[in-house]
Amino acid sequence: MQLKNDLLIRAAKGEKVERTPVWLMRQAGRILPEYRKVRASVSGFKELVKTPELAAEVTIQPVDLLGVDAAIIFSDILVIPEAMGLDYEMVEKTGPVFPKTINNASDLDQLRVADAARDLAYVTDAIQLVKKELNGRVPLIGFAGAPWTLFCYMIEGSGSKTFSKARKVLYTDPQMAHKLLDMITQSTITYLKCQIDAGADIVQLFDSWGGILGDNQYNEFSMKYIETICNAITEVPITVFAKGAYLAREKMSSLACETIGLDWNMDIAESRKIIGDQKTLQGNLDPCALYGSYDEIAIQTKSMLNQFGSHRHIANLGHGVYPDTNPDHVRCFIDTVKNFQFNS
Amino acid sequence: MQLKNDLLIRAAKGEKVERTPVWLMRQAGRILPEYRKVRASVSGFKELVKTPELAAEVTIQPVDLLGVDAAIIFSDILVIPEAMGLDYEMVEKTGPVFPKTINNASDLDQLRVADAARDLAYVTDAIQLVKKELNGRVPLIGFAGAPWTLFCYMIEGSGSKTFSKARKVLYTDPQMAHKLLDMITQSTITYLKCQIDAGADIVQLFDSWGGILGDNQYNEFSMKYIETICNAITEVPITVFAKGAYLAREKMSSLACETIGLDWNMDIAESRKIIGDQKTLQGNLDPCALYGSYDEIAIQTKSMLNQFGSHRHIANLGHGVYPDTNPDHVRCFIDTVKNFQFNS
Repeated sequence: MQLKNDLLIRAAKGEKVERTPVWLMRQAGRILPEYRKVRASVSGFKELVKTPELAAEVTIQPVDLLGVDAAIIFSDILVIPEAMGLDYEMVEKTGPVFPKTINNASDLDQLRVADAARDLAYVTDAIQLVKKELNGRVPLIGFAGAPWTLFCYMIEGSGSKTFSKARKVLYTDPQMAHKLLDMITQSTITYLKCQIDAGADIVQLFDSWGGILGDNQYNEFSMKYIETICNAITEVPITVFAKGAYLAREKMSSLACETIGLDWNMDIAESRKIIGDQKTLQGNLDPCALYGSYDEIAIQTKSMLNQFGSHRHIANLGHGVYPDTNPDHVRCFIDTVKNFQFNS
Repeated sequence: MQLKNDLLIRAAKGEKVERTPVWLMRQAGRILPEYRKVRASVSGFKELVKTPELAAEVTIQPVDLLGVDAAIIFSDILVIPEAMGLDYEMVEKTGPVFPKTINNASDLDQLRVADAARDLAYVTDAIQLVKKELNGRVPLIGFAGAPWTLFCYMIEGSGSKTFSKARKVLYTDPQMAHKLLDMITQSTITYLKCQIDAGADIVQLFDSWGGILGDNQYNEFSMKYIETICNAITEVPITVFAKGAYLAREKMSSLACETIGLDWNMDIAESRKIIGDQKTLQGNLDPCALYGSYDEIAIQTKSMLNQFGSHRHIANLGHGVYPDTNPDHVRCFIDTVKNFQFNS
């Protein structure tokens, strides 16, 4: 299936584009009343993730309703820990909670490398439905959590400000840490390849907790595994987004990835200088900017576009869109990108 | 009262010291059984903060029990919002909660610039007791939250991963934001001067949520007010610690402060290069390193000391010590600093 709008893929590959492509992290979700209606029809978030027809429906909503240049499969990064044998619950207003966590090397015996084709068929089924329904209108983004971020949840058992339990293991049992990170990495590679086989046109790794490690530990416990994944994914372009990982940007420039995501606090010019011109950059408007007036959103968005320039940029927020954002304000952001003319 | 151990003050001023001084953020607190005993004798955290005899007692505990080179007054950054008219509760395991928050400009009418001498006398009383009891053994550190961090709590009403409510105001009502930040700044200056009058030998500003703003917003909504405070505090050395504020380090080098705190993710050599050699640096061992073995703690601590060098460094963690840290491991950190010999 030839893509009718392949701006995102071409921008990722560094090809010339007529205009900057745009999508939003968390675009399929609570900002849309249409999403909340579907969500209300099921018992919980995980049921939505695991019902391919519904996951496909909410994946496509932002393409129809917001006019983004890509869909991203509606799912959760924690499907991998679950497929490895560590179940979780999504608790309203609290976030994910793991009844069991990994505390020592013997706990690893209860885990397996995920059999994605079997255990995560609900994701690949949803991808196939989305691809059929999209009919080439825009590309579909597949994704997974970076191994370090999944490790954080599997050790800590929930969200945390410091993830001190997870970071403790790096000092007390680095061997166990590497063993678990390796299992997650192998699971993730298979999972991403299944997503690609099912039709994902590009994939993204989310290292949501990349910012809580110093440079040496980031290299040893996160970057190393991201590198392994990037080297293994040769079929489609890959994007790496490591929130808060300021010091990691330099090394990321030599990853076998096409695109690097910037969070809203990363300076655009500084990041381009550090990363060089061989990568596409994605981001990075402050999601809070969408709380401003239409005029303010347009000003901030244009300023961002000018800072990134017309080449090798995919417009996005620097973090997932916040759930209470007015969809009309999101449309203002998207339309501003789509209508923007660079000064020649 | 002449200080017998004035290593911290001399290091802050950039004078030569026989060895690197050391203390820990959150050294007075849950790591010590002796603290937990005092804490159990009162109904809540705030009662402890507001009872000068008890606050003084737990302030001195780490000097006696851990051998640190400074005491830091046991208190809370949120005493300022409270003294401005915005009460808070400290909820066990949740953290601070403000029943009322600031939502718009008219809410500011309910606030006042704190009358620290009257409303925060419990802090200055505690400082006087500590000074008397310490009898010059080590210096006493006073502190306050940076205006931006206090602003976050006053708008958001509690801790948050994103502080999106607080950051929203920067886009929707920047004038109100500046008005509130100015009130906090005036309150903080008076408060710090009261602490100094009562005997604080050095003061520190904690910008715990400095890392959630991009560079421009940090300059406008945080740095500007930190600068005002630094310019106003001329009596004793002042330390600024802005967690996660990577981009702010360069501008901090021109603040009228003596010491800049580094979090555990900030690269030491890079920070020294950015900040220059006219400031003392404080930090920055990963608090999680204290979960390691004694050997590992010694290795990590020595590595940190070597990276900072013998001049203009105050040893500390890069974040508050985590409550479940073994006090013997904290002592290992402290003793390693105290016994360290730089290669000549």
